Amino acid sequence: MPIHAYAASGPDAPFEPFEYEPGPLGYGEVEVAVEYCGICHSDLSMKKNDWGMTQYPFVGGHEVAGRVAELGEGVEGLEVGQRVGVGWNSASCLRCDQCLSGYQNRCPDAEATIVGRHGGFADRVRAQAAWVIAIPDEVELVDCGPLFCGGLTVFNPFVENDIRPTDRVAVVGIGGLGHMAIGFAKAWGCEVTAFSTSPDKEAEAREMGAHHFRNSRDASQLAAAAGSFDMILVAVNVALDWDAYIAALRPGGKLHLVGAAEKVSATVFPLIMRQKSIGASPTGGIVTARKMVEFCARHAIKPTIEEFPMSEINAAFEHLESGKARYRIVLAAG
Amino acid sequence: MPIHAYAASGPDAPFEPFEYEPGPLGYGEVEVAVEYCGICHSDLSMKKNDWGMTQYPFVGGHEVAGRVAELGEGVEGLEVGQRVGVGWNSASCLRCDQCLSGYQNRCPDAEATIVGRHGGFADRVRAQAAWVIAIPDEVELVDCGPLFCGGLTVFNPFVENDIRPTDRVAVVGIGGLGHMAIGFAKAWGCEVTAFSTSPDKEAEAREMGAHHFRNSRDASQLAAAAGSFDMILVAVNVALDWDAYIAALRPGGKLHLVGAAEKVSATVFPLIMRQKSIGASPTGGIVTARKMVEFCARHAIKPTIEEFPMSEINAAFEHLESGKARYRIVLAAG
Repeated sequence: MPIHAYAASGPDAPFEPFEYEPGPLGYGEVEVAVEYCGICHSDLSMKKNDWGMTQYPFVGGHEVAGRVAELGEGVEGLEVGQRVGVGWNSASCLRCDQCLSGYQNRCPDAEATIVGRHGGFADRVRAQAAWVIAIPDEVELVDCGPLFCGGLTVFNPFVENDIRPTDRVAVVGIGGLGHMAIGFAKAWGCEVTAFSTSPDKEAEAREMGAHHFRNSRDASQLAAAAGSFDMILVAVNVALDWDAYIAALRPGGKLHLVGAAEKVSATVFPLIMRQKSIGASPTGGIVTARKMVEFCARHAIKPTIEEFPMSEINAAFEHLESGKARYRIVLAAG
Repeated sequence: MPIHAYAASGPDAPFEPFEYEPGPLGYGEVEVAVEYCGICHSDLSMKKNDWGMTQYPFVGGHEVAGRVAELGEGVEGLEVGQRVGVGWNSASCLRCDQCLSGYQNRCPDAEATIVGRHGGFADRVRAQAAWVIAIPDEVELVDCGPLFCGGLTVFNPFVENDIRPTDRVAVVGIGGLGHMAIGFAKAWGCEVTAFSTSPDKEAEAREMGAHHFRNSRDASQLAAAAGSFDMILVAVNVALDWDAYIAALRPGGKLHLVGAAEKVSATVFPLIMRQKSIGASPTGGIVTARKMVEFCARHAIKPTIEEFPMSEINAAFEHLESGKARYRIVLAAG
């Protein structure tokens, strides 16, 4: 049975209905019936071939929430009809050092759901069973697609940097990623500061869990926070005044990037004197994804979404490109 | 009784005999009779006022090995005559968050032995008792001065980055710091690679404990190490091809700076994709210093030194400035 998807035939072409025949379901694979699929900024980058690795026709979509439609041979621990999610990665080798030490997201052979294959802007999508994440009952399908890429990307730094509930965390950028980061930081027990260039987002940021709001265009507000933060999570992909943010870290603090600005640079002396560091990370491993959805269930964390029917995918992308999405767009299938 | 020291009256002046009256020994202070004092590159930077914080007459010296000469009121756990060392820091508040969580070296009020006070190019020097580190019997006084600044500076990253004996560590720069780092890395149980611009140091580097030697001027040797290292410890203070070194890190690997190049910059995408980070640190805390000298005793680690009588301090500084020191200069007092 062919998969019914939406594909773009080139960087500037609109998405149009597109069918493809997926072939027999492979050993260890799972086919997921897509109910919702979030739109991530990287879907737009891939559509435009910003990273030079897009194949057309391009079917994006890697924030899938749906139900198991079919189990390939050898799959255990999942059931047809079960609610599941699929994110940026849809497979990894599961035998390299990275995979076997919890870092399947760093597997050199990891497969990305929308790179060299077709993603979740479709009625069905496939993934290796280990990357198909069970969704707890408390979490609504409509809400959880964005967790599997954007959510995991900002959840992972809390795990990887060993953030404690006694820590102070700042989130730079209240957008698709940042707004989920604020929710995680609050539920993690931390003191949370939101930095945004949009002062009109203050009330919302506080509702999401920020204890403090700072206007990132006002250098004095950043300067006033000198020596404050154990982690500053940068969820924007533009160049910042890196030294000024580093000055806002506590001794031993970490500037952590999940938004891919082109370059990061810093004056070394303050890094040395106060033992500060600059780190970065890509999405997260499988177990971290499992823990994330459990954490969301326990703390009622969900992204703020705007829903579009998948048939209006082009309008949804225009909305994304306009910068007005508040905060994550989700396409509802069929 | 006055302290007999060597002081420079200005950035370009030679060191000359200089006496000063230290006043009564303070509560909690210890006076150390200097037997040996290493020369660190930062003594030269301070003499020249490179950092704009030098006061003249300037008495350098912050790699002291000697014996307790006198105990101030309230000092416990040290005895007159006991062999001890003093390094970059000679006091800290011991009540701030940093001091009380093991990071006395990050105390905002930490006192440096040669900043705003007189150091160890002298017959005696004083320090707060906690910063006076007992030297195990197995360690010779003549050898151990350099451990307390240079040694601690390169030992601390192993502790702070949680380096395991199963890790691969590279040391960039075989000089005053780097040669001790190689010794630590070897004794730590790691696979050790030395990077140097001087191919003639290969045999020595291997003797110090390096399993591999790479010429840092040969980009192909660095490129061949792609994805290799859990930590690259940068013990030089010049700009490197940061992206090339970052490419040589394993996923999750850390580029750690203890040499203060002016700026560090990196392309963000590779940092994100393989979760790499750039960190830095200053010397180490008190407990780390204690563990370091015990580790040196247990593993017979000592710096390679060249000894000068303290009266020949100016010749020793010329030797340092010539770049020919192999690898750490130690002044022998009186």
